[in-house]
Amino acid sequence: MKDASDRFEVRLAGSGGQGLILAGVILAEAVAIYDGRNAIQTQSYGPEARGGASKSEVIVSDGRIDFPKVMLADVLLALSQEACDTYFHGLKPKGLLVVDSDLVERAPTSKAVGVPVTKMAIEATGKAITANIVGLGLIGGLTSVVSRQALEKAVTERAPKGTAEMNLKALAAGWEKALEIKEASRSVRPGPRRRES
Amino acid sequence: MKDASDRFEVRLAGSGGQGLILAGVILAEAVAIYDGRNAIQTQSYGPEARGGASKSEVIVSDGRIDFPKVMLADVLLALSQEACDTYFHGLKPKGLLVVDSDLVERAPTSKAVGVPVTKMAIEATGKAITANIVGLGLIGGLTSVVSRQALEKAVTERAPKGTAEMNLKALAAGWEKALEIKEASRSVRPGPRRRES
Repeated sequence: MKDASDRFEVRLAGSGGQGLILAGVILAEAVAIYDGRNAIQTQSYGPEARGGASKSEVIVSDGRIDFPKVMLADVLLALSQEACDTYFHGLKPKGLLVVDSDLVERAPTSKAVGVPVTKMAIEATGKAITANIVGLGLIGGLTSVVSRQALEKAVTERAPKGTAEMNLKALAAGWEKALEIKEASRSVRPGPRRRES
Repeated sequence: MKDASDRFEVRLAGSGGQGLILAGVILAEAVAIYDGRNAIQTQSYGPEARGGASKSEVIVSDGRIDFPKVMLADVLLALSQEACDTYFHGLKPKGLLVVDSDLVERAPTSKAVGVPVTKMAIEATGKAITANIVGLGLIGGLTSVVSRQALEKAVTERAPKGTAEMNLKALAAGWEKALEIKEASRSVRPGPRRRES
């Protein structure tokens, strides 16, 4: 497979009704239409989909994407315990796991980044359904897979009629939280900044 | 590749804003969740997506789907001339081409099934955006890839809030039209029914 090293694979997992298909479409459009890279966005429906766990995948590459299915993900966003349990084994050993800390009580690794995604959505917009967009903001802010501007454009374009402003608030909440998390992880390392305080 | 003979591949193509991603998601969910088969639904965004043509693909199988990308489609629905020109080469020689006869003026084969999809949508619901669902009804009625009941359930589940009834009308319009087309193609063949008239 060519370009394998260039691929960046994101898996968004939760239960039906959490808007993860829309989130995948928005991420793929942000990357491809506004950041000018290539993307493939996929939903697979098999026996596991008829259970409770649902997933949406996005593969990003600057080159051609030869095999369009996520094999081992670089990022897994898990918005339910079942989705976390089902898809954690498909995350790369050094991959990033982001979980909704209220909905995933037992994270499978201490390295998981726990964020109260749904609670943040309710605080930011009054609507739990915007947790999907908070999640996108988190992923965007924690990785460099997509620019903030591209994500804002794609959210504006794809949000259901009349909900763009609300979804942009959800995106901002997720992105800002990601920056806080990055800052906090820097500040716990021994270094000049730490010693000054 | 195993199960290749079992695969049925549908490509929905048009321009951005015609709702073909949603149509692909609805078809995949109908097949997988309500008809109990397996499905993969994909959007690819590459250089061609940054032009005008947009596509959404659904692969249906009773077995495991090993390679998740449509190679040669069994069905192509084309809702724009550019999409028809871009994707016709990816249709199997005996594949079914359905075009919006008002929007695709030059069909690349005389075997294309021309239907005024968008006009029918406007007549059925008053909204051109429901052309995507009329298209699904056409594909469902012309092939046996999905049951009508499964498609109705998936449309009801996935239609934007408050639009389920409207979209069910669009679906019915497409499905009934497909039955008419099948009936007409039977009645032009010499046979008992024909001789009686």
